[in-house]
Amino acid sequence: MKQINAEVIAVGTEILIGQINNTNAQWISKQLADNGINVFYHHVVGDNLGRVRSSFEKAQRDADLVLVTGGLGPTEDDLTREAFQLVSGLEMHEDKVSMDRIKEFFLKRGRTMSPNNHKQARVFEGAKVLENTVGMAPGMLVEHEGTVWAFMPGVPREMKQIMSDHVMPYVREKFDLQSVLQSRLLHFIGIGESQLETDLLDLIQAQENPTIATYASEGEVAVRLTARADSKQEADRLIDVVEKEVMERVGQYFYGYDETSVQQQVFELLKQRQFTLASAESLTGGLFADALVSLSGASEVFLGSFVAYSPLVKQQVLGVKEETIRKEGTVSEQCAIEMAENAVRLTGADIGISFTGVAGPDGSEGKEPGTVFISLHEKGKQTRTTELSIRSSRQGVRAQAVKKGFDLLFHYLK
Amino acid sequence: MKQINAEVIAVGTEILIGQINNTNAQWISKQLADNGINVFYHHVVGDNLGRVRSSFEKAQRDADLVLVTGGLGPTEDDLTREAFQLVSGLEMHEDKVSMDRIKEFFLKRGRTMSPNNHKQARVFEGAKVLENTVGMAPGMLVEHEGTVWAFMPGVPREMKQIMSDHVMPYVREKFDLQSVLQSRLLHFIGIGESQLETDLLDLIQAQENPTIATYASEGEVAVRLTARADSKQEADRLIDVVEKEVMERVGQYFYGYDETSVQQQVFELLKQRQFTLASAESLTGGLFADALVSLSGASEVFLGSFVAYSPLVKQQVLGVKEETIRKEGTVSEQCAIEMAENAVRLTGADIGISFTGVAGPDGSEGKEPGTVFISLHEKGKQTRTTELSIRSSRQGVRAQAVKKGFDLLFHYLK
Repeated sequence: MKQINAEVIAVGTEILIGQINNTNAQWISKQLADNGINVFYHHVVGDNLGRVRSSFEKAQRDADLVLVTGGLGPTEDDLTREAFQLVSGLEMHEDKVSMDRIKEFFLKRGRTMSPNNHKQARVFEGAKVLENTVGMAPGMLVEHEGTVWAFMPGVPREMKQIMSDHVMPYVREKFDLQSVLQSRLLHFIGIGESQLETDLLDLIQAQENPTIATYASEGEVAVRLTARADSKQEADRLIDVVEKEVMERVGQYFYGYDETSVQQQVFELLKQRQFTLASAESLTGGLFADALVSLSGASEVFLGSFVAYSPLVKQQVLGVKEETIRKEGTVSEQCAIEMAENAVRLTGADIGISFTGVAGPDGSEGKEPGTVFISLHEKGKQTRTTELSIRSSRQGVRAQAVKKGFDLLFHYLK
Repeated sequence: MKQINAEVIAVGTEILIGQINNTNAQWISKQLADNGINVFYHHVVGDNLGRVRSSFEKAQRDADLVLVTGGLGPTEDDLTREAFQLVSGLEMHEDKVSMDRIKEFFLKRGRTMSPNNHKQARVFEGAKVLENTVGMAPGMLVEHEGTVWAFMPGVPREMKQIMSDHVMPYVREKFDLQSVLQSRLLHFIGIGESQLETDLLDLIQAQENPTIATYASEGEVAVRLTARADSKQEADRLIDVVEKEVMERVGQYFYGYDETSVQQQVFELLKQRQFTLASAESLTGGLFADALVSLSGASEVFLGSFVAYSPLVKQQVLGVKEETIRKEGTVSEQCAIEMAENAVRLTGADIGISFTGVAGPDGSEGKEPGTVFISLHEKGKQTRTTELSIRSSRQGVRAQAVKKGFDLLFHYLK
């Protein structure tokens, strides 16, 4: 396969003064890398005709493919067209289809179009005009002296639409890119990243195609398998083989593929088993409930949560025994047990989960910050309690406690 | 003042394949802009000696100041030193202080240093070596043929430390930058961005020094006043004058300066007035409680929250009348009132706030998504209820409802 060299150029002074971040370059690079195209440079240049021209001249000399974002707007500061005209000598004209879309855009919003908006419909002779379905300025693909130029708006969602719908398909065909890249994300909970890496070490060391990458985030880990092949089917087949190996070793910690979360999986399991859930939260302070209520349809399984932050509310509302609080403290196994059991008793839920502990930064009741008790109670069964020592910030302790709660629920329900 | 032209160069293939975003460029540019230094280009170049060299050669020709991040690590791929040596012809040697720090770094962690770590202590002759207090590789300042070069590690926190502690002070002195830039952020809640802009229109149009910028975020707005002057005192004085004008017009919506949040302000007001608070949440599902529990010391004022997500829990646990739910529904003023009043009654709090509504995406009980009732009850007083129609996603509706709750509490308490 011929090696294609690309450059990504962003035009806009707002990036050079640090007002916005050039996230477009990352997104574009990811697309190109997925298609096996080398990116040699990212450049950012301000709204200055001389400097934009000089950046374009250099790219015209060096690159097979140049992706330009920004500078296509209606104002005097938008100089991408002018600069490329100086480089290429190509004529420009107003594109009727694009102009009609711009007029319609103003009409629909009941606003008056100012004359400078005509500028946004100006395209180079011989250019392929790329419809912008989410904004005004169209994109353009121009071939000039052996280099393919793609011009796109700087607004990320407009750029992404034009890149996905038009630029990548064109580039794949133009450069005859046969291979496809497929990737699959496997999520695990209840195993640490170092243990996961140890368990998969020989696979990771021998990796080639698919590649294997591990990621850790708050309280969980993921493995991304990425394969390149001549077809999607073949790439999927290559991934299947490695996935099977991975699952044989750490499958007991697996909870889902790609875009999912452990709370989503817990939600699905509760639905499948027709269980309802209630919670009682002290240090997590509503964070557990929020994670469930964030899911559309949560009311099918989630009844509610007692955010019993003060000891008196634990006692008076949630019915934790005065004696428990006096003798064991609110940060104790016994308090967690009573919280989970009473959450079930008071709401009639099938399952109750409770969280009590010290979020920090200071200790409490003689317990270290990060000490957390989580109890899980199913109606009519023995309550199970897990004690954790989490080393993190206040928010980290709270978030990890919630994640651990979902971990326990997932393994209990599955 | 002489105009100083800078370029920001990041070295690292991981940026060009889209694996990470070059956030360093934005942060550095912001620092330079704050000091009145023009940034003409950002470049990103991969771990390739020829291309790094060519980027450096161009910068040496064009710029007064070049800020380079990345490529200072111990591996074969780290080529920043090698490339600059080709450009400058400067000799290198091992810096003893830096080497001692690297050895200590390994010693403290009980790890064995590999020989290639010596590379990280190599510095150019005549360079000012910049201590890295958060990582291993030191930074360097080198003057070469009229251009100032700053080399910094690519890890953002290491770069920021070296930039703030060493590079900016050096650059300010070197280029004799006298002026300082001061900025102050004013937070407002209960007024929309367009109303705020209308109220401040003549100030915004006449702005020069200080500049006035408005920002909107979920449910609140902020105004940033930024002044340039010869001293901090003078800049502050300029800001004071404009702030006074702003406050005369929209001061009733002001809640705080700089790094604060409306929940922080509500927390402070509750403490000052020695009030305790409890909440009852339906659609917000613990998000309100979480915002308070996130604050260290929340237990001084916050007793807890009833996350009464199911109608039955609203009735059985929170004591909302069966008749209310049957006749008015759970998404109703009457339900919100009973939720707030019962939160106070059950917990003994001084103030109760409740949230009930439709988060969406679907409607419920014949009510549109985004319909929200918030009730505020102070013990022994009349309950006040606010009805909202929020147009947003499920999470947007929930977040804006919570923000509005804090808005109501803030204006009630202040």
